Amino acid sequence: MEPGSRGAAPGRVSVSAVLPAGGSGERLGGATPKQFCAVQGRPLVSYAVRAMERISWISDIIVVASPENIETMKTIIEKYGHKRVTVVEGGITRHRSIFNGLKVFAENEFSSHLLQKPEVVIIHDAVRPFVEEDIVSKVVMAAKEHGAAGAIRPLVSTVIASAADGSLDHSLERARYRASEMPQAFLFDIIYEAYQQCTDYDLDYGTECLHLALKYCKTNAKLIEGTADLWKVTYKRDLYAAESIIKDNLSQQVCVITSVKETVAQVGFLLPETLKSQIKVEAISVSLSKNDSRLQNIVSGECYNFVCVNDKKCAIQETQQLVDVLEKSNIPLFYPVVLISVHLDTSENNSFSIGMEELTIIKKFARETKKKNILVYGLLIHYK
Amino acid sequence: MEPGSRGAAPGRVSVSAVLPAGGSGERLGGATPKQFCAVQGRPLVSYAVRAMERISWISDIIVVASPENIETMKTIIEKYGHKRVTVVEGGITRHRSIFNGLKVFAENEFSSHLLQKPEVVIIHDAVRPFVEEDIVSKVVMAAKEHGAAGAIRPLVSTVIASAADGSLDHSLERARYRASEMPQAFLFDIIYEAYQQCTDYDLDYGTECLHLALKYCKTNAKLIEGTADLWKVTYKRDLYAAESIIKDNLSQQVCVITSVKETVAQVGFLLPETLKSQIKVEAISVSLSKNDSRLQNIVSGECYNFVCVNDKKCAIQETQQLVDVLEKSNIPLFYPVVLISVHLDTSENNSFSIGMEELTIIKKFARETKKKNILVYGLLIHYK
Repeated sequence: MEPGSRGAAPGRVSVSAVLPAGGSGERLGGATPKQFCAVQGRPLVSYAVRAMERISWISDIIVVASPENIETMKTIIEKYGHKRVTVVEGGITRHRSIFNGLKVFAENEFSSHLLQKPEVVIIHDAVRPFVEEDIVSKVVMAAKEHGAAGAIRPLVSTVIASAADGSLDHSLERARYRASEMPQAFLFDIIYEAYQQCTDYDLDYGTECLHLALKYCKTNAKLIEGTADLWKVTYKRDLYAAESIIKDNLSQQVCVITSVKETVAQVGFLLPETLKSQIKVEAISVSLSKNDSRLQNIVSGECYNFVCVNDKKCAIQETQQLVDVLEKSNIPLFYPVVLISVHLDTSENNSFSIGMEELTIIKKFARETKKKNILVYGLLIHYK
Repeated sequence: MEPGSRGAAPGRVSVSAVLPAGGSGERLGGATPKQFCAVQGRPLVSYAVRAMERISWISDIIVVASPENIETMKTIIEKYGHKRVTVVEGGITRHRSIFNGLKVFAENEFSSHLLQKPEVVIIHDAVRPFVEEDIVSKVVMAAKEHGAAGAIRPLVSTVIASAADGSLDHSLERARYRASEMPQAFLFDIIYEAYQQCTDYDLDYGTECLHLALKYCKTNAKLIEGTADLWKVTYKRDLYAAESIIKDNLSQQVCVITSVKETVAQVGFLLPETLKSQIKVEAISVSLSKNDSRLQNIVSGECYNFVCVNDKKCAIQETQQLVDVLEKSNIPLFYPVVLISVHLDTSENNSFSIGMEELTIIKKFARETKKKNILVYGLLIHYK
């Protein structure tokens, strides 16, 4: 697929991404490499892939896995419906794995067909699940201009140099230094050249791509201040933290959809206003029968809570349309989606306007959608 | 109190601790300074104080709080029954706060009476809740020998120096550097001398005590490899992590107490053996009527789960004795204690050996202990 066929890349540059996912995770203290550890039931690497996948202007996503984990990785890609992903066999060190990932754009060593060489390549870790489009875009644009760029963060602890006898040699002045984080991005030709020139020592003992670009291509990377959520899952406590952040995010956004006529639209209006103090609310007024791009954006933004307000006779058809949109999005594959279908009954008749038969249909419908991980709840409001 | 009246200090040195707790917590993104954020319902600083308090050979614990939080700090100390703690008013920077904390051992500026000057002073952060006696002991012994010592950890990210234009100047070789963590310890005279010599610039912009000892007293601190749990709670995700770690720890240790005669002791023996694959088990055979030091150690080691196996006629008296021990320990102040009282009935008579009246007494007893945050459950086993 041509990169141009998706969303606009920053500066109209063609962009692909390489995610080294070959680590052994020994610092976690468990047998499972950290990128495969489940966070809310889903492997960490899937979050990082999803973060890249959500950025429409990234063409190819190369995930580099160690030989023994290639099949696991492929299963994850398939299970969670990840697109634009190529799994490549890694080397024995991080640098060798990244080099292998880059080769699929330049050599036939690791793939039967070459992927189209991007102008800029992003390098991101499989164990950094929360990267946002904004920072990726900034890093890519800086890489286009300067040849290389990387996200940085302030140091949390003072960094010290130790002497040979295990005593303090000197402390670094904290303000002058930064922690080098991910994502990083490079003009493809620069980083590929750097890896080709690279000594075996650097390939085996180095970890920092910015360093290689400087050493072998005299390219001083542009440093971009990143957000706190870019941190790398390293220890078991980081898995705990990731899990809590994901749980928080899941419950923090609700999309209120109204397709009612104006006279009753204030119900759809008042609800979001009331919710806003508690939660992030996206309120949109769309016809669900049309393929609305705003709704698509919200869904692909990983919203898991929906309130659908309608005053149609056949409320269930409206709900069905939203269920269809959600199903196509793959969103319910990741977590349960909660959908509250609010039916405004504006008839003058005060008696319950829903019959036994209709109730049975709705119940059956809810049972069916539950199997698809979409939990539908109904609410009938008499409104005069 | 003389330090010598408590547990043996490493190398028979007198030791006190200073905990700076004056930070504003701006990196957490919340209004509450991080040391006062609740983790499992209890302020973070209380965990750090408790970690120091549990080490019997630390004489005084000086907590330095900012002027506006002095009362909050005193309330916390009282609420959680912390002992050996003096709250001191902090300065506008971390170094000025630590200096104030040290002054209570040397000057009358911050306290009506001088505390006894220790040979070695520990400096630890209020936002590092999980420090263990082992590492504190190592750091203190190294400080006694070398004048200064501090815990270090491997760097998680590569550290880079940025040039004036915001581009990469150079990357540091990761293996040569370490993150400087806490606890640190110093011969009191050395660190106090360093603070007295210190320039205003260092007091205002420095954060690292090891640096001051080197700069002003030519003392190269000994660096001690610390454990991963020494990390500093800095971001909101760290609070999540701390909470999960605490929850994990609470459920991971059980103490099985048996005071039954040998013929039936195998029940008390088999239970711990069976539990061992799931959980950390302390099995002890003690008479609860005596003040047993092993039981005291387990309780002060913050065990929250107890199984008490007995074959006495009056099972409730045994349980009452354990409840008394727990109550005196302050342990139920922090979290609910679960106590399963197992009564072995070894009589030949197969009928239920417990009457209605006794059952009522037991129920009433459990209701009373519940108010004290001790949850008592009973189990009657016929055993022949």
